[in-house]
Amino acid sequence: MKLLQALRAAVGEANVLIGADAEPYLTDWRKRYSGRAQAVVRPGSTEEVAAVVRACADARAPMVPQGGNTGLVGGGTPDDSGAAVVVSLRRMQRVRSIDSANDTLTVEAGCVLQAVQQAARSQGRLFPLSLAAEGSATIGGNLATNAGGTQVLRYGNARDLTLGLEVVLASGEVWDGLRGLRKDNTGYDLKHLFIGAEGTLGIITAATLKLFPLPAAQMTALAALPSLAAAADLLQRARAAAGAALTAFEVMGRITLQHAVETLPSLRMPLPLAQPWYVLLELSDAEGEAHATTLFEGLLADAMEAGEIVDAAVARSLAEAQALWQLREGIPEAHAKRGGNVKHDISLPVSSIAEFVEATNAELRRRFDWIEPIVFGHLGDGNLHYNMGTVAGTPLAVAFAHEREINAIVNDAVHARGGSISAEHGLGQLKREAITRYKPALEIELMRRIKATLDPFGLMNPGKVI
Amino acid sequence: MKLLQALRAAVGEANVLIGADAEPYLTDWRKRYSGRAQAVVRPGSTEEVAAVVRACADARAPMVPQGGNTGLVGGGTPDDSGAAVVVSLRRMQRVRSIDSANDTLTVEAGCVLQAVQQAARSQGRLFPLSLAAEGSATIGGNLATNAGGTQVLRYGNARDLTLGLEVVLASGEVWDGLRGLRKDNTGYDLKHLFIGAEGTLGIITAATLKLFPLPAAQMTALAALPSLAAAADLLQRARAAAGAALTAFEVMGRITLQHAVETLPSLRMPLPLAQPWYVLLELSDAEGEAHATTLFEGLLADAMEAGEIVDAAVARSLAEAQALWQLREGIPEAHAKRGGNVKHDISLPVSSIAEFVEATNAELRRRFDWIEPIVFGHLGDGNLHYNMGTVAGTPLAVAFAHEREINAIVNDAVHARGGSISAEHGLGQLKREAITRYKPALEIELMRRIKATLDPFGLMNPGKVI
Repeated sequence: MKLLQALRAAVGEANVLIGADAEPYLTDWRKRYSGRAQAVVRPGSTEEVAAVVRACADARAPMVPQGGNTGLVGGGTPDDSGAAVVVSLRRMQRVRSIDSANDTLTVEAGCVLQAVQQAARSQGRLFPLSLAAEGSATIGGNLATNAGGTQVLRYGNARDLTLGLEVVLASGEVWDGLRGLRKDNTGYDLKHLFIGAEGTLGIITAATLKLFPLPAAQMTALAALPSLAAAADLLQRARAAAGAALTAFEVMGRITLQHAVETLPSLRMPLPLAQPWYVLLELSDAEGEAHATTLFEGLLADAMEAGEIVDAAVARSLAEAQALWQLREGIPEAHAKRGGNVKHDISLPVSSIAEFVEATNAELRRRFDWIEPIVFGHLGDGNLHYNMGTVAGTPLAVAFAHEREINAIVNDAVHARGGSISAEHGLGQLKREAITRYKPALEIELMRRIKATLDPFGLMNPGKVI
Repeated sequence: MKLLQALRAAVGEANVLIGADAEPYLTDWRKRYSGRAQAVVRPGSTEEVAAVVRACADARAPMVPQGGNTGLVGGGTPDDSGAAVVVSLRRMQRVRSIDSANDTLTVEAGCVLQAVQQAARSQGRLFPLSLAAEGSATIGGNLATNAGGTQVLRYGNARDLTLGLEVVLASGEVWDGLRGLRKDNTGYDLKHLFIGAEGTLGIITAATLKLFPLPAAQMTALAALPSLAAAADLLQRARAAAGAALTAFEVMGRITLQHAVETLPSLRMPLPLAQPWYVLLELSDAEGEAHATTLFEGLLADAMEAGEIVDAAVARSLAEAQALWQLREGIPEAHAKRGGNVKHDISLPVSSIAEFVEATNAELRRRFDWIEPIVFGHLGDGNLHYNMGTVAGTPLAVAFAHEREINAIVNDAVHARGGSISAEHGLGQLKREAITRYKPALEIELMRRIKATLDPFGLMNPGKVI
């Protein structure tokens, strides 16, 4: 085949995978999406990516960019036509430069998020993007999906952490937009088109990212709360008291935590599972241990006096802090082990969340008496993972059998309150159709026109997003 | 004329200005740009803006959106063909809603920035965008130009403060993208196309903006420094010590300040004008006066011991703090009064600034023995207003006569160091041509294609940006 020859010429024989070698790239890690491809190519440089794109464009072969293959919406999996070429960026993992006096770092797309964090830390700096899959997710995938995670409250999402991009366009041309500037008002800010576009407008090959000072001390606590409304009040109190030093505010339902600790023996719950809601708070202090302790304990004491908190466990060591974080981060793994659930990655105005959860739980329970809400997420950003399992005695298959109806109820309730049906995971294949019910038709049309402008032959990750 | 009839039908006779009534809208406030127009229209609602745009589109009349007319690059002034219709948004000044539990506010484009700040404050919240023209600049203009100002270090520029937009497109259709969500990964993030596009892709009519807790205490100081390199070191020290509580870090050259205090009798300099550089530092503390004082004075003492600061004056009252800010904010006015200077609004990696200023000052002085650098700006963002006047005895007209050569030297030096020739003012008419020398041709081409997609007849603020 002519295309395979061109790809081999572009990246070398060893980096064009077919048959069994290609398999691991053709199914997402949750094994919910599977497809076929002409080949999987593994370019090692921007020039090689450009050569691959030109070869595919010449052959009119669709391209599916892929990073760590940790996405949750099938955005990195080809369809089953077998026409696509999967472009894996994982070999491009160089940290090109770190400018610690400018608090910036330039890194290639295939660099694993944890390696980016470590590169920053090696220079006494913080790269704050942090999420459960950070050990295998790549920064290119994080940018293509505008990843969120646990530190968005303070530092913003992947988009907010990006100063510049290098992108291979659908034509195979390379746009060098790598700039380490906090301010640059010289025309349309093109990087924001590619961030969050899930590879449908071009392939991100490198990025210049913002760094921050490492905090001098961190405090972490798990608090037990009587209601979700109390959690919203606690959030306001914590933001007022700690300002930007409040770096995480993660909420977890009692049932969600209970299943997690029952499923993963490594998890240890430091408080009785006696309240309906739990919040993991993290304070990152620029001054030091003593100041952080005073501030944090004052905050918790005030919240307890106000009735927002019933009980709290403050981590007294790094190990205890990590154990609290493991509780939060163990939730997806624990529930996957139990057989999964019907997932929703929603965002709402923070002011609507308590009412949304109460009303939507009630509506779902009226409709399905076997339903069990598994709720956790980034309350500080208005982002909940509002998932649905089944009560003991009802197999999870029953929930999956009703997935479409559950989705419709949840998504309609989110939309009615001005929310989003994909807060941080993206659309991919999973929500590409659903979004057309909720986004204004004019906005979809604008997206379509921009797609046609930047990718006239429709070869960049077709069947995703739009 | 048919168009004028249609405009009168859209906004009412009283809001279609021609002749002398239109004059104030046809010249920018610095009186550097002047043009003509068929009419100035003053729509009072989004629907009226849409009707105006449809009427203009039907007549193929170019439209020039205008806010407070405080821009610095001629972005809101029509050309002299007389073909354009100026669309003044100033009548659209409603605060549509404030959701303080969600920390958001939705406001119409014509609302003056100061009124937006006040609306937030009335709910105990902070809208942090802050700049010298805030008493007359509108939020719509701030968004169209992605305004910066003095609080970018902590809160970001106008783009970073925006969650949602309402935009009237070139077709007259209204895109309702008003969302109060911190996370929303459902396709291309279109708001970022319109922010900073200077009205060339559509007319922003409303925005949903982020609010923050008001700080419990603020500390302000003016410090005298031996060098610009010391200022960069002080910035690192202050960010490490205070984290996000460091809300302003403004640098000013000695000559710049000296001319300002000599020109504006209201300005009072609390330190001898004996060092080459001065920095205005502001700390915004979530905890209170006592904590802020300890932290701030500790920081200044450490910096003095390290030799980064030679002398410092800490404001002991709100009035003293305002007097320090007046020094900084009086600079543009004072220098305008002296007859102006050749302006550059540049940004660089912070790590390059000291070397840039030294090298470029030297190059300019080699070339023009009469030159006097007037330098100040937002060092924390890498953004300098690197302006050029003349030494005593040489009229300022000499500098203006050499404007093009000075611009070329400065812009080339900025470009060679990976900087931007427009950090926060935009391109408008002033830098539309210059940018083509520095931006990659491919990026200009992408901008052109996006412009053609969203504004196929080229009617939205033609002759600006691109």
